[in-house]
Amino acid sequence: MTAPIRIAIAGAQGRMGRAVAETIAADPAFTLVARVGRADAEVDGLVRIDTALASADVIIDFTTGRASSALARRCAARGGPALVIGATGFEADDLAGIAEAARRIAIVRSGNFSLGINMLVGLVARAARALPAAAWDIEIAEAHHRRKVDAPSGTALMLGDAAARGRGVSLAAVERRTRDGITGERPTGEIGFSVLRGGGIVGEHSVVFAAEEEILTLSHSARDRGMFARGAAAAARWVADRAPGEYDMQDVLGFAGEAGRPAGSVPPGAVPPSAV
Amino acid sequence: MTAPIRIAIAGAQGRMGRAVAETIAADPAFTLVARVGRADAEVDGLVRIDTALASADVIIDFTTGRASSALARRCAARGGPALVIGATGFEADDLAGIAEAARRIAIVRSGNFSLGINMLVGLVARAARALPAAAWDIEIAEAHHRRKVDAPSGTALMLGDAAARGRGVSLAAVERRTRDGITGERPTGEIGFSVLRGGGIVGEHSVVFAAEEEILTLSHSARDRGMFARGAAAAARWVADRAPGEYDMQDVLGFAGEAGRPAGSVPPGAVPPSAV
Amino acid sequence: MTAPIRIAIAGAQGRMGRAVAETIAADPAFTLVARVGRADAEVDGLVRIDTALASADVIIDFTTGRASSALARRCAARGGPALVIGATGFEADDLAGIAEAARRIAIVRSGNFSLGINMLVGLVARAARALPAAAWDIEIAEAHHRRKVDAPSGTALMLGDAAARGRGVSLAAVERRTRDGITGERPTGEIGFSVLRGGGIVGEHSVVFAAEEEILTLSHSARDRGMFARGAAAAARWVADRAPGEYDMQDVLGFAGEAGRPAGSVPPGAVPPSAV
Amino acid sequence: MTAPIRIAIAGAQGRMGRAVAETIAADPAFTLVARVGRADAEVDGLVRIDTALASADVIIDFTTGRASSALARRCAARGGPALVIGATGFEADDLAGIAEAARRIAIVRSGNFSLGINMLVGLVARAARALPAAAWDIEIAEAHHRRKVDAPSGTALMLGDAAARGRGVSLAAVERRTRDGITGERPTGEIGFSVLRGGGIVGEHSVVFAAEEEILTLSHSARDRGMFARGAAAAARWVADRAPGEYDMQDVLGFAGEAGRPAGSVPPGAVPPSAV
Repeated sequence: MTAPIRIAIAGAQGRMGRAVAETIAADPAFTLVARVGRADAEVDGLVRIDTALASADVIIDFTTGRASSALARRCAARGGPALVIGATGFEADDLAGIAEAARRIAIVRSGNFSLGINMLVGLVARAARALPAAAWDIEIAEAHHRRKVDAPSGTALMLGDAAARGRGVSLAAVERRTRDGITGERPTGEIGFSVLRGGGIVGEHSVVFAAEEEILTLSHSARDRGMFARGAAAAARWVADRAPGEYDMQDVLGFAGEAGRPAGSVPPGAVPPSAV
Repeated sequence: MTAPIRIAIAGAQGRMGRAVAETIAADPAFTLVARVGRADAEVDGLVRIDTALASADVIIDFTTGRASSALARRCAARGGPALVIGATGFEADDLAGIAEAARRIAIVRSGNFSLGINMLVGLVARAARALPAAAWDIEIAEAHHRRKVDAPSGTALMLGDAAARGRGVSLAAVERRTRDGITGERPTGEIGFSVLRGGGIVGEHSVVFAAEEEILTLSHSARDRGMFARGAAAAARWVADRAPGEYDMQDVLGFAGEAGRPAGSVPPGAVPPSAV
Repeated sequence: MTAPIRIAIAGAQGRMGRAVAETIAADPAFTLVARVGRADAEVDGLVRIDTALASADVIIDFTTGRASSALARRCAARGGPALVIGATGFEADDLAGIAEAARRIAIVRSGNFSLGINMLVGLVARAARALPAAAWDIEIAEAHHRRKVDAPSGTALMLGDAAARGRGVSLAAVERRTRDGITGERPTGEIGFSVLRGGGIVGEHSVVFAAEEEILTLSHSARDRGMFARGAAAAARWVADRAPGEYDMQDVLGFAGEAGRPAGSVPPGAVPPSAV
Repeated sequence: MTAPIRIAIAGAQGRMGRAVAETIAADPAFTLVARVGRADAEVDGLVRIDTALASADVIIDFTTGRASSALARRCAARGGPALVIGATGFEADDLAGIAEAARRIAIVRSGNFSLGINMLVGLVARAARALPAAAWDIEIAEAHHRRKVDAPSGTALMLGDAAARGRGVSLAAVERRTRDGITGERPTGEIGFSVLRGGGIVGEHSVVFAAEEEILTLSHSARDRGMFARGAAAAARWVADRAPGEYDMQDVLGFAGEAGRPAGSVPPGAVPPSAV
């Protein structure tokens, strides 16, 4: 039996920080060694960042762009721990700081830690690469609750991007956002979106590959935002013994090196098979 | 064992006429006694309309508006047979002729004989009547093959109309055809449409009633246009011993008299429970 | 604007009692006037049952069989208030007491208050009545979380019963619980079940009517048990001004009097159209 | 513009042979140069096998085991053409003959040429490899027409096998064929099957990966058996310029070399990225 991975959480007071703490505490593969607040205060069981740096194998960070980049540089300066970054709101120089840090330590950064969504992204790119556009039409359908104010969802666009990437085209060049009235026949190569809004639907996404005589559908259904905390924990387990580099959830799921990944996204460090 | 119902087919040379002939011939509940071409010719096993009138219990008519109306008046003048009309392209005076004929004979007229679609229409109106708009959002999703040139499908709009009718509102007042970009929150009472196009999809329709904690979905999937011929046959069986009046497939399925039917659609003749 | 309906909750300390209190408190159509514990204590904001009886239009009861029956008789003795009973665990004489009470007051009793599930039950019976068994095969598929220890779910069996009832047969005579190995062709009239277990699925039910060329599918998806509290609130609103009688959720949704209801389930008191 | 690939069809009189001929004739990427009957007769536009061997780049073979193996050896003896084998009913020595021939020519052999089904198999193995069994339950649901006499379908079992393989276990050790009555909680690692039969459903397969807070579903829907002919054509295009070896549809779709393939299934010849 391996020793539990020692986890510190930065941004522990936020909603995601609390959810991650709960997930980590419930999983015997981990020990939660430190919780750091944004303000770096020593209240309510939260500790200073120095304590976290000294005691953890991996820091899971849900602060914000500036703080996150500073944390990455600090970890890099002392040669560890590894980082899982779920923070958002990065400026260009924040990202540059993280990339620089990734030359010394292993960092997984993602805007969406759901294992299911990230698996779907990888599978969609994979299928889009092999199923020729002349015969297989790609459509992306999403459904969300009535309070969502934009459409299509960011995840739907991410899936569209994966499909377009798999085909070696740009989504902007082939996307079809709406259909109403006399549309004419569907052009070959188009990637269509459709949007449903209602009730309390947490989030449903389907990518449909429709040929003349058969249909392949790859779908994801979210029931609860707890899936993000679980995915961050899986990323922490994966990154704990990884070579330095900047990774994302496609790497965690073992899609690294498969065709269709954006150029330059795979770091120099070797990426062994997934151990999610 | 009841005697088989004697069926004549008008418009027997057309695609629907041929499909109906095949369905009728394969069903022991019927005897196919006459096939009449549009041109009323006596070739290729087709007979003159007089022969059909004299020998049939029900005529299934897939001609066109003008011919169909004339046929209805002819049947009415001699007190039968009953009629199932699937013809399209009616002018106002054609419809007036059919309404006049329906005072003497029983006529089922429909633009879509699918039992499944018509059942869906009835169930949607039923559910929309009982599930309050404040809590239940209605959305209609449809998918068709890549060759379809318009959107949403006529069937999707028919379902939207049934939902609006069930709620006592006009579809035009509440429909939402597309969503793209910053849409804002979904307004209460809206009926939304979403459209998917791809491959050889024959026709899929879903009506979603989404509440905060639960979702009711009523769906139809078409595999083959043979469903229209089967539905026309079911209408023929239903109309064979019906009192004079002009009926539609909602009557055949026993939805007559249920709330949400458009005023005046139910004829004076009593409508006993469905015997589909 | 109508005055809010005054609600008392019996069994207010239990899980369902608390959920109902939350729903009632959040809905301006109601005023929560009293919460009664099982032990009839006056602690923690809970009141004695006498206070509740005197001040409420409707009591929503989630106690247990014996207490529930006693409460019904007490309400009947004083001519009100009306009752919504979600209690379980009734002996025969408890039920007899409730039936007796229903001669003086209006009572809605149900083992499942989800409006969506009950609507599904009504629609399934309706569709099964009109779609002939010779052409339409009925199958019921359900999916639940990995912790569920029995199969098929009680709701799936209730749906099977509604389908059988719609066809005028007994479920026991036509049900097919499993298929494995050489099954032979599917017999006409069979009602099949299929069961999926996995993850945290709250509860999915689909009733499939499959014909040769088309499929009608009626489905329900539960996201959260809060749907039961909302349904109990809808029942309270419906029963508030109802004539004496014992009703169930099919009555609340307006299915009373439609074919396929079990004989004797409709009480002598007139049942006006649903006002859910 | 590349020259069309010259195709000969063996077993051209059978149902699959005729379907393939139609598909090939309609696709400008191919020229249909010869149709060979089982009896090797020169009637009805069919030619002797010698003509086919001399003129084709690829032979698509839908004969039977014995004839297919003989054909493979004949092709190997003259160093071509390449073969796509869809024949069934092989004895051990037939397979040995094919394996021997595959040292000289490229052969794709499969029992199911649907691109969608084979893509699904590959994606299922891929997802099962990365999503840990402790958190993700795998279930396989299939639906077919009422005339199907066995359950689960061969394709469902093939999908179960791909899922088990992805997890490094044997399907026999973890499969759960039915659930009825008191089943107890679902054991971790189980792969469950559920079966639906009704109407004219051509074939539906879903593989569900269910976690506590999210679900990934990978599905295939067949509309028409023409998909098999199209897949055989895609295999012919892929094999036309391939190095000697025995391949299957997983190779055609580029899954060769990915984890989870059965040991020894990949031939010595290099397998460049898919060009389906």
